[in-house]
Amino acid sequence: MRFDTDPYLTRYADRVQGMRASEIRALFAVASRPEVVSFAGGMPDTSALDLEVMEEVVASVIRDDGATALQYGGGQGREPLRELLVEVMHHEGVPGNADELVITVGGQQALELIAKCFVDPGDVVLAEGPTYVGGIGALSSHQAEVRHIAMDADGMRIDALEDELARLASEGRQATYLYTIPNHQNPAGVSMSVERRHRLAELAEAHDLLVVEDNPYGLLDFAGQTYPSLRELIPDRVIYVGTVSKTIAPGLRTGWIAAPAPIRDKLVLLREAADLCASNLTQMIVERWLTSQPWREQIKRFTEVYHEKADVMLGALDEQMPAGVTWTVPAGAFYVWLTVPAGIDTSDLLAKAVNHRVAYVPGRGFYADGTGGSQARLCFSYPEVARISEGVVRLGELLHEELELVQAVFGDTAPQARTRHEGSSGSRGG
Amino acid sequence: MRFDTDPYLTRYADRVQGMRASEIRALFAVASRPEVVSFAGGMPDTSALDLEVMEEVVASVIRDDGATALQYGGGQGREPLRELLVEVMHHEGVPGNADELVITVGGQQALELIAKCFVDPGDVVLAEGPTYVGGIGALSSHQAEVRHIAMDADGMRIDALEDELARLASEGRQATYLYTIPNHQNPAGVSMSVERRHRLAELAEAHDLLVVEDNPYGLLDFAGQTYPSLRELIPDRVIYVGTVSKTIAPGLRTGWIAAPAPIRDKLVLLREAADLCASNLTQMIVERWLTSQPWREQIKRFTEVYHEKADVMLGALDEQMPAGVTWTVPAGAFYVWLTVPAGIDTSDLLAKAVNHRVAYVPGRGFYADGTGGSQARLCFSYPEVARISEGVVRLGELLHEELELVQAVFGDTAPQARTRHEGSSGSRGG
Repeated sequence: MRFDTDPYLTRYADRVQGMRASEIRALFAVASRPEVVSFAGGMPDTSALDLEVMEEVVASVIRDDGATALQYGGGQGREPLRELLVEVMHHEGVPGNADELVITVGGQQALELIAKCFVDPGDVVLAEGPTYVGGIGALSSHQAEVRHIAMDADGMRIDALEDELARLASEGRQATYLYTIPNHQNPAGVSMSVERRHRLAELAEAHDLLVVEDNPYGLLDFAGQTYPSLRELIPDRVIYVGTVSKTIAPGLRTGWIAAPAPIRDKLVLLREAADLCASNLTQMIVERWLTSQPWREQIKRFTEVYHEKADVMLGALDEQMPAGVTWTVPAGAFYVWLTVPAGIDTSDLLAKAVNHRVAYVPGRGFYADGTGGSQARLCFSYPEVARISEGVVRLGELLHEELELVQAVFGDTAPQARTRHEGSSGSRGG
Repeated sequence: MRFDTDPYLTRYADRVQGMRASEIRALFAVASRPEVVSFAGGMPDTSALDLEVMEEVVASVIRDDGATALQYGGGQGREPLRELLVEVMHHEGVPGNADELVITVGGQQALELIAKCFVDPGDVVLAEGPTYVGGIGALSSHQAEVRHIAMDADGMRIDALEDELARLASEGRQATYLYTIPNHQNPAGVSMSVERRHRLAELAEAHDLLVVEDNPYGLLDFAGQTYPSLRELIPDRVIYVGTVSKTIAPGLRTGWIAAPAPIRDKLVLLREAADLCASNLTQMIVERWLTSQPWREQIKRFTEVYHEKADVMLGALDEQMPAGVTWTVPAGAFYVWLTVPAGIDTSDLLAKAVNHRVAYVPGRGFYADGTGGSQARLCFSYPEVARISEGVVRLGELLHEELELVQAVFGDTAPQARTRHEGSSGSRGG
């Protein structure tokens, strides 16, 4: 069952500009075939879970309190679950209490509810460039104007943020909020440095800026390191988003928001209007997992799996990529962000890549403004270790061929590569 | 575990005008105490499910395909589930095919996505008066102007709909859509007559009107009767909403929309922006239930339980209610809609009722325009049979006392009762 599905790829389709949605949907359907190594979907490796244990956890929830599990629940989510998720936050050093939490359908619903709560059409929301495709989706569906803040290997560039805040002020406008994924960012695969977090906190205070801190990957640092959260630094200015999708399983569709009380109350009402309540069943499965299983060890196990896969991918990239291709070096989570030389467009290249039996998400999927044509996201978390090298070999062959073509056409006048992370720490070039 | 929770009561709080939200939330918290017979929350009786069977169903999903169950899924929802839900629709005579369906988090998310898809702030949406509180919630959260169409014992009054359509035309406006619950309506407890369905279909064609047909209760007719669906009569004009919350269990949070292809595609994108995808786990539980269990017999079993409870409540109302109180006589599902004589306000009365250890939802919760002060919804589906008579006795005592008070104050000049269903078939007076 490992290679026959990459089911949520189609959602990138409408974000990859330069291709018709129908084309790219068809392409992703082909990319889901078993012979294709897919670095596209950002899926956790659920094979690192003990399914026999999970079977007993799930069965015991029905056995012990099935009538509650199968019934409606409250809009804020179950209190026992909120108390346990606070322990998960504390494990990472993020402050919080159960009363501040609203349970959501994964992190995605959290982003949607926050957008619905704050965004009026035309409002400006700041976000890293690149950023999570689902974050853009939630904002676009509320007609926000997303302005990207450039990144480097130390995460969001605070100087670029400062410039954008100044630009907004000069326009007489204010950002509705700043959306950031500070830890092991999707898709860039880098984290915001500690120093920048402090500078961001200062800027937020100075500019009266609300911050949405999305943290799906903070516990998946390969060295077990954690960073100070923005919620810790400026608690009154931060709406924090968490999820168990990467620490337990995405099929449980359980995430949460931690927010100051007045915002929390508004979010509970919006959640009730959106879908009434979370599933008691999946909430109670998460509770049972967190009370009966060694979940900290399970997260460590996930991290070891991803660390090994990252090393394999980075080693293969070093060996296979032609000169001029660069990439970020993740210290945790799922993603490598690849930059190809000018003359190659990753959207255009995808069809050929799939013919070469390897898939990725073109960089344009992660920008609201059509940029990202020289970038691609490679996700190493899901494919089996042996397949990762195979996929990188195929991608390397393709890029070598393409660069020869570019060279043949442009000769020495080949345009400069528009790499984002070149020369910064935490990135490498082939 | 039966009487200690009535967890989603608080959602009515913000709809019951005339009381402060904080007051009514506090009141509903008291109403959840075991000594109170609550006719408030519209919850199915999950004790009619065989929990040992459900435990095996849930365990087998993890055992047989846990890796898929715990993984992300696609935005439209699983195809095997969509095929099975089409069978559920066909069981009721509603046409449809799997390709037209989008899986949602219960019926509520369906209503939210439809509102998000079509409603701009200030748009007019027509709905029965009274109507489902969550339907109003979804519409209000998108700033729709809800205009109610009066009902009687045969459901929505088509003459009133015609009047409203004429009024809109004279204002140079058009309704964005008509939201209707034709079968065993929540909260009115009545169904739209077959003749009115045909007239509604004609009107929709004549006025180019889109119809949202919400059908949570259609399979819960006490006599096993089904009505022709609007989707059958005018398939191109209807967006159909279904749910397994009342036919299997609400804790599975599984509903669906059946819509023409272009609308379906838009809804899939909105769903992905809203929460990415449905839980594969809960979807696969529904699939397993529908393929391995005698689900038609289970629905029959639910219906028998609700039929018995309805009879007990109606019998008790006949015995206990003072003159001047009227109510609808449900032929299926969960609800009796009660109308009290003028001089009594059901919002004001709720605190006293809870002191008398009985709870209901005041009628104002089911109107967007502040009317409904003489009405109350009594839900008989959840309390145990023996408790239903007890609750009605308490309510009867309270109303007798209140009417004596009104009489003492107003004497013979007591204002006329503003009952909605008086004199029509399918309603009774005490």
